[in-house]
Amino acid sequence: MEELLPLVRMMSRLPGLGPRSASRAVLHLVKKKETLLVPLAEELRRVGAGVRECAACKNFCAGEKCAICLSEDREADKICVVQEVSDLWALERSGAFKGRYHVLGGALSPLDSVTPESLGIPALVSRVSGESVQEVILALNATMEGQATAHYIADQLESLGVKTTALALGVPVGGELEFLDDGTISAALSARKDV
Amino acid sequence: MEELLPLVRMMSRLPGLGPRSASRAVLHLVKKKETLLVPLAEELRRVGAGVRECAACKNFCAGEKCAICLSEDREADKICVVQEVSDLWALERSGAFKGRYHVLGGALSPLDSVTPESLGIPALVSRVSGESVQEVILALNATMEGQATAHYIADQLESLGVKTTALALGVPVGGELEFLDDGTISAALSARKDV
Repeated sequence: MEELLPLVRMMSRLPGLGPRSASRAVLHLVKKKETLLVPLAEELRRVGAGVRECAACKNFCAGEKCAICLSEDREADKICVVQEVSDLWALERSGAFKGRYHVLGGALSPLDSVTPESLGIPALVSRVSGESVQEVILALNATMEGQATAHYIADQLESLGVKTTALALGVPVGGELEFLDDGTISAALSARKDV
Repeated sequence: MEELLPLVRMMSRLPGLGPRSASRAVLHLVKKKETLLVPLAEELRRVGAGVRECAACKNFCAGEKCAICLSEDREADKICVVQEVSDLWALERSGAFKGRYHVLGGALSPLDSVTPESLGIPALVSRVSGESVQEVILALNATMEGQATAHYIADQLESLGVKTTALALGVPVGGELEFLDDGTISAALSARKDV
């Protein structure tokens, strides 16, 4: 039991795992030592040694640049700005975007000393002015921090003459009005469209 | 993204983690590479290399026997039989048992070819006859399989003249009658006690 406690403690630091579920996961790992624990340890070591940030967009990748930045099939004139790599994954799952990305790594928060520099916003601006970018899509969270960051970036990009857009706010697909918050309903109403 | 998919796939095999939460966990790990991913990989490697089954009770341990079997402070005349190491941990959390354990590693299930031999029930019988055991407590799950296994073990132990007991069935502490199933209410009623 004591032998496994450090592992339980580490596993419980993962999002979605509390102390109880971390214990269950560790016992499962030890039971499946050869088929799961050993390969997982090796894979973690491999990822720890090999994965780093893409030099261009801060996505995670194995080489100097990520597969999306290197691909010739992606539209080089569109950059989608996201807060986290998980947001990039969500957009890729949707399959709706064929351009390239720029991962900020968070949202502006002066109180936590998250500054434009630490989010790489100057790097984004120089990237937009250097490359032949036509449109920057701000796909930031619809939270106070996300929207404040979007406004700041839009300001910085204004002088470059690039088209800056943001994700539409509105009713989520499958959403029922009864259960939506007031902000979403207001946003959907003011952005209403002809049918 | 492709670089991390094998790790996501492995993580999603842990109990409590689906594909979505495994992705989140992996991204968290990569973000906290130095403070979490690298130590976790090392700890998994250490556990994979060092942890094995206790020769006496099949608890997980680092040496030949587990700390509970080696401890002089535990009551050597009581053996508590549990299905899984997680059940042993649950009993230890309660602090209510001071004897030693015997972990079966499952419950009898002839259809899945889980036999008395594969559960180490003969080993339990010879352990009980060899050591100075006064009482065997059957702390198996209150499921069909658990109870069938308990009956089988009780039969095997009958000729040894050892006291065989089982956990009481009844209303769980904090339980509200309204939400209990019929089986629990029947069991609690037929095992009612004087107050």
